[in-house]
Amino acid sequence: MSACLDGYHSPDSSTLQELNNIANRIRINSILSTTKAKSGHPTSSSSCAEILSVLFFRVMKYKVDVPKDPSADRFVMSKGHACPALYAAWVETGHLSEKDLMTLREMNSLYEGHPTPKIDFIDVATGSLGQGLGMAAGMAYIGKYVDKSNYRVYCLLGDGEMAEGSVWEAFAFASHYKLDNLVAIIDVNRLGQSDPTSLGHNTDVYRKRAEAFGWNGIEVDGHSVSDLNKTFYVAEKCKGMPTCMIAKTFKGKNMDGQEDLMGFHGKPVSAAATDSMIARIRELIKDSGVSLTPSPPVGDTQPTNISNIKLSSPPDYKLGDKLATRAAYGKALSKIGKNCDRVYSLDGDMKNSTFAQDYKKAYPDRFIECFIAEQNMVGAAIGMACRDRAVVFVSTFAAFLCRAYDHIRMGAVCETNINFFGSHCGISIGADGPSQMALEDLAMFRAVESSTVFYPSDPVSLERSVELCANTKGICYMRGARTATPVVYTADTKFEIGVAQVLRQTNADKVTVIGGGVTLAEALTAADILKGEGIGITVIDLFTVKPVDKATVVRCAQATGGRLITVEDHYPEGGIGSAVAEAISDVTGIKQVRMAVRGLPYSGAPTELLAAFEIDAQAIVRAVKAMIQ
Amino acid sequence: MSACLDGYHSPDSSTLQELNNIANRIRINSILSTTKAKSGHPTSSSSCAEILSVLFFRVMKYKVDVPKDPSADRFVMSKGHACPALYAAWVETGHLSEKDLMTLREMNSLYEGHPTPKIDFIDVATGSLGQGLGMAAGMAYIGKYVDKSNYRVYCLLGDGEMAEGSVWEAFAFASHYKLDNLVAIIDVNRLGQSDPTSLGHNTDVYRKRAEAFGWNGIEVDGHSVSDLNKTFYVAEKCKGMPTCMIAKTFKGKNMDGQEDLMGFHGKPVSAAATDSMIARIRELIKDSGVSLTPSPPVGDTQPTNISNIKLSSPPDYKLGDKLATRAAYGKALSKIGKNCDRVYSLDGDMKNSTFAQDYKKAYPDRFIECFIAEQNMVGAAIGMACRDRAVVFVSTFAAFLCRAYDHIRMGAVCETNINFFGSHCGISIGADGPSQMALEDLAMFRAVESSTVFYPSDPVSLERSVELCANTKGICYMRGARTATPVVYTADTKFEIGVAQVLRQTNADKVTVIGGGVTLAEALTAADILKGEGIGITVIDLFTVKPVDKATVVRCAQATGGRLITVEDHYPEGGIGSAVAEAISDVTGIKQVRMAVRGLPYSGAPTELLAAFEIDAQAIVRAVKAMIQ
Repeated sequence: MSACLDGYHSPDSSTLQELNNIANRIRINSILSTTKAKSGHPTSSSSCAEILSVLFFRVMKYKVDVPKDPSADRFVMSKGHACPALYAAWVETGHLSEKDLMTLREMNSLYEGHPTPKIDFIDVATGSLGQGLGMAAGMAYIGKYVDKSNYRVYCLLGDGEMAEGSVWEAFAFASHYKLDNLVAIIDVNRLGQSDPTSLGHNTDVYRKRAEAFGWNGIEVDGHSVSDLNKTFYVAEKCKGMPTCMIAKTFKGKNMDGQEDLMGFHGKPVSAAATDSMIARIRELIKDSGVSLTPSPPVGDTQPTNISNIKLSSPPDYKLGDKLATRAAYGKALSKIGKNCDRVYSLDGDMKNSTFAQDYKKAYPDRFIECFIAEQNMVGAAIGMACRDRAVVFVSTFAAFLCRAYDHIRMGAVCETNINFFGSHCGISIGADGPSQMALEDLAMFRAVESSTVFYPSDPVSLERSVELCANTKGICYMRGARTATPVVYTADTKFEIGVAQVLRQTNADKVTVIGGGVTLAEALTAADILKGEGIGITVIDLFTVKPVDKATVVRCAQATGGRLITVEDHYPEGGIGSAVAEAISDVTGIKQVRMAVRGLPYSGAPTELLAAFEIDAQAIVRAVKAMIQ
Repeated sequence: MSACLDGYHSPDSSTLQELNNIANRIRINSILSTTKAKSGHPTSSSSCAEILSVLFFRVMKYKVDVPKDPSADRFVMSKGHACPALYAAWVETGHLSEKDLMTLREMNSLYEGHPTPKIDFIDVATGSLGQGLGMAAGMAYIGKYVDKSNYRVYCLLGDGEMAEGSVWEAFAFASHYKLDNLVAIIDVNRLGQSDPTSLGHNTDVYRKRAEAFGWNGIEVDGHSVSDLNKTFYVAEKCKGMPTCMIAKTFKGKNMDGQEDLMGFHGKPVSAAATDSMIARIRELIKDSGVSLTPSPPVGDTQPTNISNIKLSSPPDYKLGDKLATRAAYGKALSKIGKNCDRVYSLDGDMKNSTFAQDYKKAYPDRFIECFIAEQNMVGAAIGMACRDRAVVFVSTFAAFLCRAYDHIRMGAVCETNINFFGSHCGISIGADGPSQMALEDLAMFRAVESSTVFYPSDPVSLERSVELCANTKGICYMRGARTATPVVYTADTKFEIGVAQVLRQTNADKVTVIGGGVTLAEALTAADILKGEGIGITVIDLFTVKPVDKATVVRCAQATGGRLITVEDHYPEGGIGSAVAEAISDVTGIKQVRMAVRGLPYSGAPTELLAAFEIDAQAIVRAVKAMIQ
């Protein structure tokens, strides 16, 4: 560490006193705001007060009036429950009023129980522990490799959340990509919610783990503003690897009767006890004679334009040719990437299966290998998309996106705009067996607030899905298939979110059938078979499973005597059949039969499995006939 | 390491030759079976052939004819795609015929593309990478602390999956609990699916990480049967910590033209190339003059009886008293724990919020703190439940169960019987904000194959849910609430899976309303308000959201003129409204209005939020009136 201290000048004693004053005012406001709210986490706030004081008034470079200026340093509070301290730090900068802080946790207050980006100084929502560092790593990746700017990224973690595997995925990602503009600070206050943490105050164990994961690990007294100053300086000088500061702290520091004790997690101080407790903290605040102000950014990072992204050329596939939608994914990405140099592709060592490799071939600098760590891949994607720095597409097997469901859920709370492509849906993948078959992905993504769920059934609609995803707010998901199915759309077909395509329809149709992907192809085959027997069916491709084109579904179903069949390569819960049932739940007179994968699947040939689970053309023919008997 | 070699005797050269012969026969059968299947992973199988040979014929103690005997050593192949090698190892033991092996990946063959417990020598399904070690740790915990038996647990991991955070959660868990009966072997073959791994052949980095996480880390030549023998001996002698063997191997070892090369992942050898490739491997097989047989178990672990578990006393709550279902959870667990000493409670540092702490107080030896690592908590639970060694209940905030969705999904493929309690569902938790609110948990669990989803609305039904969970196969989920609601059931009320409770009903009712938890309480309040205005409504508590009691719902809805309202503290997709819409999709004449949480919620008081999101009694009153206008 000593070599890295070349050129370091310790702050003078007045400055150190003022940093301590700020820390103690942060404590006081954390106590007052949580006591007023009658809930919240004052002790978790107190342990990190000095860390925030030094960060906000000595280390970080930002614009107090424009916290999300693109050139400003980023701060992510992974231990989101300690947000009263973060809000209080912004009170210290003058950006936030004490009055506003005292609305903490009230309805309609921006200052919620855990931070959300409704606040102008918050980039990412936190509160589900272990997610902040991955997001911070995504921001740091953009800063170093895309913006190529001077801004740095700081992430404060709790020691409890170090048990989350997602944190170690982020550690591996950040060292692999040498993110030396990233600093993680672990607030090792020893105490979890219901018990002490597994490692207690053994800061050396955290340091060894950080070092083993390729980081510059430094133990520091987290309540010494002097030591913190020095360590942040060392962190800034460290090149080629990220720095992890392991800060030994005490939960409830300076909180009389609560410091370093169990039993006070998430408990506000009683109104009766605050006066004396705060008086003791105020005694620590001494006139320093100085006033500290944050430093402005050192670079000038310009805003990006990531709106109105179009395919560079229309889809070019021939009707009837057979191709899997996954085979069109990388090509489609490349087409939007040609028009927008901020389109990024992230993949989890599946790029030769998802065909994200085609994007890597076209734009190697805009592809990021995230290895087999889906949670961090999603977290990093959310971080990358912050402040509109990038349009991010995440791909892997659809089944493995389950691994990141909590990150995706939190992505919605982050109001992120990232996009997902999940390949290899359903039993139609065949011999690899159930572990690789996504049969709950539609249920999962539909239940995400802000989500739009695409189910493109051919390469043409896949390309248009990619184009729409790039321009749609919220989380977008595209369900992709391993199985080759016929091209069913011409290049000039128009696709819109919430607008279904009616592929077969005559006035004499008896039943309306809705399919998606492989089951749309099977439904079209069934239509041909039934036509030969003089039975007409209407065939619908929903295109988006969320939102569902209710008007088209109802109109078609009513035109076929209220007879409706949904057929899907997904479990019966939460997929196409469920989306349609929900959509038409307040319409009477429609009888819907839901064909889906019932029971645990197994290895087999795709056609064998479609037949065995009764979602193939023959099964549809049987169901149609049963319905019109 | 040398000190640990006291008493070690190296196998003689004949034995070493035979171990090599076995390894090469495993290779040959892996190649032949995947070539015949036209898919699969021969190169990933080849890299671990010596590891399997030594494990199965020198190290592990088991009964060839009864692979899942409770006293036998356990083996978990976390890198499930290499299962051809595992199946081939069982061919070597004589338990499996070559003919059966050659049905690999065919429909109706037990020998699927990734292992599943349909096979009599497989405990847990693998194939979603990074999950095996957590399951193995659960087995080792049971072996050491519950069965107190001599059996040991071996887990083979791929190096690619070491990027998964869940692996490091398992590392932390296993060292915290000093599982010295657990050995992890990392098959470091350097090559991922689409690119080399991040760490390549740097086995020292893996060793340092393992050591930093509290394991005995040993690097070993993974193709030297002599070194492997020695290292497994050291592992067995190591006390107080688990051992991690970092085995340097080559992907496609001994496979001519493929060894240590990219481009062959998941690709069978062409039929044309197999003859010459296998001939070269056969040259390595030399008559050893010995025949190796596995050793039998050293202990005698008895079967357990975990069937027909009952509450030790009936529920004891007073009608009308207000209590949150979470407050009854630990007590309910204790009541079944009194009758069955194999009931285990796992929690992720939330036990004072989920009230699992009440079980810990009653039976401290049967509570396992899993810290904030939900994926490993679920993986360990699956491992613990194997071979019917334990009845396992997992608890945390319902929102954070999302973190383990892939593990839960794989739990269904494992045919596990573990149970979940997710507390703090919905916006009714109030001020903590959206990150802590489970609003997609019903969607998530309903889409799990084998699942039963309980939504107990009061402490009485919560106790009965716990009792039913303990005796129900498959994955059970109980949705729990933070909010106190009135006790609505008497102690003698009978509860069955798939049987709803009709709480209010008269012949003159105009609308049927279905609620759950807090919205059931609101619906009952609405019924009182409406009754005062001369409007009768039928109120139903589904009790289980999966399966739905379709008959009762249809009968009640038809009796109220086909007017049906569902109201829930969940997003509109996949919850109660969706389950009901699915269940009645083929019934015409029912108009269902779905009241749910629409839009991203925020902090606030529970009652304020229920009103703002229009799922409170007043909103139900308005909806009922609108429906009968």
